[in-house]
Amino acid sequence: MARDWATVFDLDTDAADLLEHFEREWFEGRQYRHLPDARHGVERGTAIVGDAVVRGYPSMPRALVLATAVPERFDGPVAVEEKLNGYNVRVARIDGDLLAFTRSGYVCPYTTAKVESLLDPAGFFDAHPGKMLCGELVGPENPYTEHDYAEVAEAGFYVFDVRDRETGDPVPVERRRDLCADYDLATVRQFGTYTPAAAVGVAREAIRDLDATGREGVVLKSVDGRRALKYTTSAIHRADLEHAFALPFDYGRDFLFTRVLREAFQAVEFGDSTAEVHERARRLGEAILVPAVETVRAVEAGEPVGDDHTVRGDPAVIESLLSHFRDQGLEVHVERDERVDGERVVAFTKVARATRDKTEYYLEGGTVDE
Amino acid sequence: MARDWATVFDLDTDAADLLEHFEREWFEGRQYRHLPDARHGVERGTAIVGDAVVRGYPSMPRALVLATAVPERFDGPVAVEEKLNGYNVRVARIDGDLLAFTRSGYVCPYTTAKVESLLDPAGFFDAHPGKMLCGELVGPENPYTEHDYAEVAEAGFYVFDVRDRETGDPVPVERRRDLCADYDLATVRQFGTYTPAAAVGVAREAIRDLDATGREGVVLKSVDGRRALKYTTSAIHRADLEHAFALPFDYGRDFLFTRVLREAFQAVEFGDSTAEVHERARRLGEAILVPAVETVRAVEAGEPVGDDHTVRGDPAVIESLLSHFRDQGLEVHVERDERVDGERVVAFTKVARATRDKTEYYLEGGTVDE
Repeated sequence: MARDWATVFDLDTDAADLLEHFEREWFEGRQYRHLPDARHGVERGTAIVGDAVVRGYPSMPRALVLATAVPERFDGPVAVEEKLNGYNVRVARIDGDLLAFTRSGYVCPYTTAKVESLLDPAGFFDAHPGKMLCGELVGPENPYTEHDYAEVAEAGFYVFDVRDRETGDPVPVERRRDLCADYDLATVRQFGTYTPAAAVGVAREAIRDLDATGREGVVLKSVDGRRALKYTTSAIHRADLEHAFALPFDYGRDFLFTRVLREAFQAVEFGDSTAEVHERARRLGEAILVPAVETVRAVEAGEPVGDDHTVRGDPAVIESLLSHFRDQGLEVHVERDERVDGERVVAFTKVARATRDKTEYYLEGGTVDE
Repeated sequence: MARDWATVFDLDTDAADLLEHFEREWFEGRQYRHLPDARHGVERGTAIVGDAVVRGYPSMPRALVLATAVPERFDGPVAVEEKLNGYNVRVARIDGDLLAFTRSGYVCPYTTAKVESLLDPAGFFDAHPGKMLCGELVGPENPYTEHDYAEVAEAGFYVFDVRDRETGDPVPVERRRDLCADYDLATVRQFGTYTPAAAVGVAREAIRDLDATGREGVVLKSVDGRRALKYTTSAIHRADLEHAFALPFDYGRDFLFTRVLREAFQAVEFGDSTAEVHERARRLGEAILVPAVETVRAVEAGEPVGDDHTVRGDPAVIESLLSHFRDQGLEVHVERDERVDGERVVAFTKVARATRDKTEYYLEGGTVDE
């Protein structure tokens, strides 16, 4: 029995044009649909499982200048919280099953198993079946990102939002913290709630501390949870660039430009001296060029280049994850595949074909018209 | 009496589709047409003046790795010459008038006057009316580029090619040098003619010397003048980046990425040590970030940002040039406008509106979704 999707998604038009952009996937014998790109005001990553809707996590605007962007965006109290560097996951319970959705709306078997092992949300979902937990999955072992946190040995899940699964409406910040405390769910770090003017100074101070320990940044939120703004550290701009320029033809152009701009505005806002600008520039240059040179040398030496990941878990879940990557057309190069305490541990490279192929082309004398 | 353009341009189709892409312009009361982008195998910058054709200068492939690209591109003797950093100009004589065409095929009144004052090609064109001189206009005073050469006080014109005006066919390298010597025309510097294998080493050595004096690079050419390859110094990559990142929203994305790649491949080919890679990276980072920070600060202080140029010449020619820029929709900010020895000297900024407007937007708290 199909629902009236135009009403569910609050569309001006009929729902056919929206629905045709959903892609069909399978999870444990059950078909579901997800929306890989935002359409008609419906967020990227929105999923439909049977008749249940799981709204995508909204994209969040970024400030380049805290001093002006914070008062511009907020007219009341602002909560300052840490932004973690992992991957965005929504956790929902549908027909009794716990499901973990990645940003694009894919129900990831690996993430679902990891979330099940990391938290016990039964009490939460018994009391709030229409809600979803939005959080960051962080730690060294996952198939999507790589960033180490001293406090996370293998993997951790930190809630930064609780939202209505169907409408996407957030619960207020204070209420979300209480819910997390009540149900023993880990949350992102809080720096307190302030007026917009005071939040600027708090955010800057937090950025200095987070930068010194190589962490990502901050998110500022209106206390009703409805408006947000992110701002990131120089450390993460460099880490992003190092990652992108190890695989320049796979990442690259827009990536580079946006990080350079973030650094330029940050240098001005943080009042860098001439010496500090030059030091920032030196570190920026090294983040860009050193990995690119290493990759050219690696390709010259015939070594595989790509994103390295390690995953650990139930053998069937690991198999399902690797199959999914291969179904997507990814070339996966397995470096290590072993059993440890009944779990399967696989270290693999998602091969960066564009970087490998174009680097080989130029090394072999290929030319470019520019 | 219209010519058979399909035959002139060696087209497979009829000429209407090509001709409609030509733009009409005026020079001293005479209308002409020029092709702003390559079409149907006809070079960008091709012009039609009356019934006369002036072919565009062909785009030249770039090597990222000399050691392999040179033997890949050439199977016979290779002439190694200096590539200068100015702007590409074709000079032709049509119906008795000397005309100077920029890369896009625009007959530039300023360049035409400058070429008339810098060289005396009457003898050359009397003997070779169907040829054109292709050269680089360099020096501090011109409306398009800015790069100083110790040997050029104000402006210089250096021939690097002599071609048939109508077919674009080049004369052989040796013959071109003889023609320049016979008619007293300045030419670009020659590093000699070698086998492809030997040319690699000569080009590398030339690049090291040119880099040390901040010059642009080399062009390698088959002795018949038909095949060419360019390769540039780290110094010019940094100069390009400094220029682009002073105006990041006007230049920027592709620009940055391509220069970083050139540096990465050069570091590998030139066998940079770890310390040398880090030094190259530091200088790269400074070339990117320092001008960007300066521009954000300049916009914050309300100063105009853009490309600065100085031009000097006959008052009517200068007026015609500035009118042309305004007709093109450029915002020209005049900093100085005076008479010196009967000539008009104007220092002006081509205002970089995208950089000014977007930088202001972010400084005022504008956000970005990324």
